[in-house]
Amino acid sequence: MTDKSKLIVPRLPRGFEDRTPADIAATDAMIARIKAVYQRYGFDPVETPLFEYTETLGKFLPDTDRPNAGVFSLQDDDEQWMSLRYDLTAPLARYFAENYDRLPKPFRSYRAGYVFRNEKPGPGRFRQFMQFDADTVGAAGAESDAEMCMMMADTMDALGLAGKYVVKVNNRKVLDGVLESIGLGKADPDKSLIVLRAIDKLDRLGPDGVRALLGKGREDESGDFTKGAGLDDEQISRVLAYTSAEGEGDPLFTDLIKLVSENATGLAGVEELRAMAALFASAGYGPDRIKIDPSVVRGLEYYTGPVFEIELTFAVTNEKGQKVVFGSVGGGGRYDGLVSRFRAEPVPATGFSIGVSRLANALKLTGNLQSEAVRGPVVVLVMDRDQTARYQAMVSELRNAGIRAEMYLGSSGMNAQMKYANRRNAPAVVIEGSNERAEGMVTIKDMVAGAEAAKEFTSNAEMKAARPAQVNVPRAGLVDAIKDMLA
Amino acid sequence: MTDKSKLIVPRLPRGFEDRTPADIAATDAMIARIKAVYQRYGFDPVETPLFEYTETLGKFLPDTDRPNAGVFSLQDDDEQWMSLRYDLTAPLARYFAENYDRLPKPFRSYRAGYVFRNEKPGPGRFRQFMQFDADTVGAAGAESDAEMCMMMADTMDALGLAGKYVVKVNNRKVLDGVLESIGLGKADPDKSLIVLRAIDKLDRLGPDGVRALLGKGREDESGDFTKGAGLDDEQISRVLAYTSAEGEGDPLFTDLIKLVSENATGLAGVEELRAMAALFASAGYGPDRIKIDPSVVRGLEYYTGPVFEIELTFAVTNEKGQKVVFGSVGGGGRYDGLVSRFRAEPVPATGFSIGVSRLANALKLTGNLQSEAVRGPVVVLVMDRDQTARYQAMVSELRNAGIRAEMYLGSSGMNAQMKYANRRNAPAVVIEGSNERAEGMVTIKDMVAGAEAAKEFTSNAEMKAARPAQVNVPRAGLVDAIKDMLA
Repeated sequence: MTDKSKLIVPRLPRGFEDRTPADIAATDAMIARIKAVYQRYGFDPVETPLFEYTETLGKFLPDTDRPNAGVFSLQDDDEQWMSLRYDLTAPLARYFAENYDRLPKPFRSYRAGYVFRNEKPGPGRFRQFMQFDADTVGAAGAESDAEMCMMMADTMDALGLAGKYVVKVNNRKVLDGVLESIGLGKADPDKSLIVLRAIDKLDRLGPDGVRALLGKGREDESGDFTKGAGLDDEQISRVLAYTSAEGEGDPLFTDLIKLVSENATGLAGVEELRAMAALFASAGYGPDRIKIDPSVVRGLEYYTGPVFEIELTFAVTNEKGQKVVFGSVGGGGRYDGLVSRFRAEPVPATGFSIGVSRLANALKLTGNLQSEAVRGPVVVLVMDRDQTARYQAMVSELRNAGIRAEMYLGSSGMNAQMKYANRRNAPAVVIEGSNERAEGMVTIKDMVAGAEAAKEFTSNAEMKAARPAQVNVPRAGLVDAIKDMLA
Repeated sequence: MTDKSKLIVPRLPRGFEDRTPADIAATDAMIARIKAVYQRYGFDPVETPLFEYTETLGKFLPDTDRPNAGVFSLQDDDEQWMSLRYDLTAPLARYFAENYDRLPKPFRSYRAGYVFRNEKPGPGRFRQFMQFDADTVGAAGAESDAEMCMMMADTMDALGLAGKYVVKVNNRKVLDGVLESIGLGKADPDKSLIVLRAIDKLDRLGPDGVRALLGKGREDESGDFTKGAGLDDEQISRVLAYTSAEGEGDPLFTDLIKLVSENATGLAGVEELRAMAALFASAGYGPDRIKIDPSVVRGLEYYTGPVFEIELTFAVTNEKGQKVVFGSVGGGGRYDGLVSRFRAEPVPATGFSIGVSRLANALKLTGNLQSEAVRGPVVVLVMDRDQTARYQAMVSELRNAGIRAEMYLGSSGMNAQMKYANRRNAPAVVIEGSNERAEGMVTIKDMVAGAEAAKEFTSNAEMKAARPAQVNVPRAGLVDAIKDMLA
């Protein structure tokens, strides 16, 4: 026998997960529905490999011998650093730049794929997870941003979430205008980024938490202190007046114009929002599906104009037992600078990314995910070990008729085999012992009816009068009898 | 403008590939058909992450500071070595061992996924590629090996390859018996592995090449010399007598029994082959689909019993202009030792792996792959930039009717827009200039009929008499007119 001391402990690596049949089936069904919408919008699938040269990804260049700041990186045998992609946007920018001459412009494409984060894992936080992105590269106008938002709204409808979501739209230029008007923005990009990230926490911390982060800083419940942006009261109230601006249409735009105080960047942003709003209206997307919301900023630095977010609006109970809205399942925006890192001319681009697990989880909660277990196979029991060729022939007949079927593999007794069939969710088992064989018959147990019967009837007589959980049919009638039973 | 000297060159990493819409659509369709067969056989999908602890993979333990012998490995921040999987079998063995108690046994599962090889790339040899595996873990009998082979045959049929493939079956124990009978086998495992790998090249090098590799060695066309196994003439002729054994049924088994000279391992192997042959016969799989073939050995060390290979038998022309059979698109076998590395008790297992790109390529060559381009979208041209909301409304109407449609994004002239529509394979374009708008009409150009017309007619009169490439319809009739055109 094996020397136990030499055994390897089978362990999933820290922060990674195995996927079950139910999870895979549900996610595949969800992705198929999303793809159908994207195809309808004229988007085509394009996929890139999991590795990119580290310099291509840009943000996390390795500056030490073993770089691990957020990305998984390794040095190739020709000394070049490669990294596993941490999102799908940077690889797409590389792809578009590399194939610039032969691609149609504008270029609409989509892809689902794994991305990797070399971060400390936590509950629900994995180091490998799936994103589903759509991007339009090479189109500068508000039309392509508006199209992204409408496609997301249609996607949520296609997933059965009508009435349970809103696509929120804002514009970085308006926010930049507000920041410039209070002496930040280009004048102080570092502090502006802190402000941006503070506002991004509005959902989670509320206005008071954000107010603290914009000012001196904030102590959280665990006692950890986060240093703030150090804005003064006047600056803070102007930022918060902006993020809390409400309403829609012209009254909202008039408010925003006031808030940016004639700053040119800010005014340009308001005009972009106005153009998008006009497109939503003419295509029949009301504010119940897509609305302008100045509280949306999106943390990522590379957005240069419109930003969007899908919020699921139904309530769930969080870890603390509080009712909260489900929240974001994806977002995106315009990133005009990302492709331009590779090319001298400006290359505008806009895109959207869905967090696949998070959206799948939302669909499960709302009963919109086909997560019911796939029906198990019909199991042909092995009653006599020397008759497996006969049992194999039965299974092959069933499979050829399109019926999911298995022969039990192994030498276990009847009890173990029935247990196995139960565990496999088998709708029926087929039994041919020596008696049946002598008579040219097979016995078929209806596992569903059998289970129901065991549940519902109080007497044997009652059970026998109802649908029988077991039938005896001629061997030649096996396939038809199973078909009848499954129908 | 951007400083050109700071531009990054967009480069796909060495040995990796981007995937096009046609490739993705064709592969997805192929995988869906394979899955349907596997489901019918009672297999369920299970997926593992791309990383495993290096010790789990077993074969390529890192023994240097930067291990790169065939696998991509990196050290996690807790000092543990992780590797990107190089096949799907080792991760499945880990998964089964880790979840042993809660999994049904036997356990049938399948998965498609990327695997990675840290090797020198070459034409058609990538460092990331997709495999599609099916495995049955926890079943020792010939029934589960036979099932694998029948499932592969059914899969080839489902892909439209009926009559163009044969699943070849052999057994390592028979080969071991031959080796033991000439003083190798357990007595000299290193030399036996060299013999194994030499036989595995039979297809490529022919009997003379293999004879050289079994003896002193072989010089290839480039002058490189490969050292041989150093067998004497008697040993070599007994190995080659085995690999060239032909026929089927009892005559073949009688020959094999002679060749293993009463060696117990060899006789056990012949009995396993005989049991599998009986199962193939009773389930109706003739030797035109599955046949016993002693020349199949499969190079991998971990196989312990039956080994299988799918060979596509149709001829293709190779790089040297020679007609050769297409050859192997997948293979597998019994690997009873792989899960046992994790557990004290023996855990039998058998599996099959398909090379996805290679099979897709075979389907393309035989016209069985749906690789025709997906129909492009209807393109609504932007004739007047200030009317995009009107064009957007048309596109939304078309999309809501389930029609793939786009508004042209950008400010290009009519020529560029028509060029774009052609490049996108658009079946139709919609035009609403100021004249049409004043009249409440739209013009629809039928791009397919237009292209046909330009090809086939020699005079304008002839063209006008035929199906018109352009129609003028009321704006309200847009969707119906497009539907008619596409029907």
